[in-house]
Amino acid sequence: MTDDALAVHRAFYYAVEAGDVDLMASLWVDDPGTSCVHPGALPLRGTAHVLRSWTVLMANVGYIQFFLTDIDVVTFPRGSDEPTTATITCTENILSGEGMTSPEAFAGGKAVCTSILVRDPAGSRTAGDWKLWSRHASPIADLHLREDD
Amino acid sequence: MTDDALAVHRAFYYAVEAGDVDLMASLWVDDPGTSCVHPGALPLRGTAHVLRSWTVLMANVGYIQFFLTDIDVVTFPRGSDEPTTATITCTENILSGEGMTSPEAFAGGKAVCTSILVRDPAGSRTAGDWKLWSRHASPIADLHLREDD
Repeated sequence: MTDDALAVHRAFYYAVEAGDVDLMASLWVDDPGTSCVHPGALPLRGTAHVLRSWTVLMANVGYIQFFLTDIDVVTFPRGSDEPTTATITCTENILSGEGMTSPEAFAGGKAVCTSILVRDPAGSRTAGDWKLWSRHASPIADLHLREDD
Repeated sequence: MTDDALAVHRAFYYAVEAGDVDLMASLWVDDPGTSCVHPGALPLRGTAHVLRSWTVLMANVGYIQFFLTDIDVVTFPRGSDEPTTATITCTENILSGEGMTSPEAFAGGKAVCTSILVRDPAGSRTAGDWKLWSRHASPIADLHLREDD
């Protein structure tokens, strides 16, 4: 169960890195209630808005790669064979740039993210599959970076 | 259903403002899988850690008041009489200070928060009640504050 949730989480970052808009769309619950908070930004609501924001990001970044650390996955209810909700927290170590022309073109960044996944309800074509329902990413304050480094 | 989830959300902020540790503890799923990200901080995991962080905050702040705006609540699955998961996003406009001695003692802040609530599973004493499962709050970048103001 947690492996399946982690596979969706991995596919999410692969979609961003590869600029794969279709893969990205397939990973979210298609619902006006999904939500996404980009670092420092206000919440976006609804899959159409969320996917548009990722498409814009993917179109505008020449190169982006995520090195995830401290990945932690749990499901609720604990011990259930049919969990309804999964939380995955991780630290995103982000390398991005406008192109591969020079090392100076790269920038690094660090964020923490909470991803909430739910399972498609019984009766749907993809019943039981984990899908992204909510994501909230935020910058890490210098204080916490110093603790880490 | 959304009213019940909002009541828990309201009680959460009341608990912080009133420094009510017992009320705060009653609002969370008691589970090592709960998570909480304070603005700029790394994720905390497990209700014991999460409650300790709130207790420390409540003990160290002389005065804190939250003015919530843009509160948005949704449940999943959409339209279900027995939803499993609720998301509440809001903007926290925070007034805090060390005491009521002078207006200069106050500080203001702004954050966005995603709260994820789940319902206690069948068989538990509080079956069906909404409880906090995950919270992620983050600072808003200047760019977005300027858009707002």
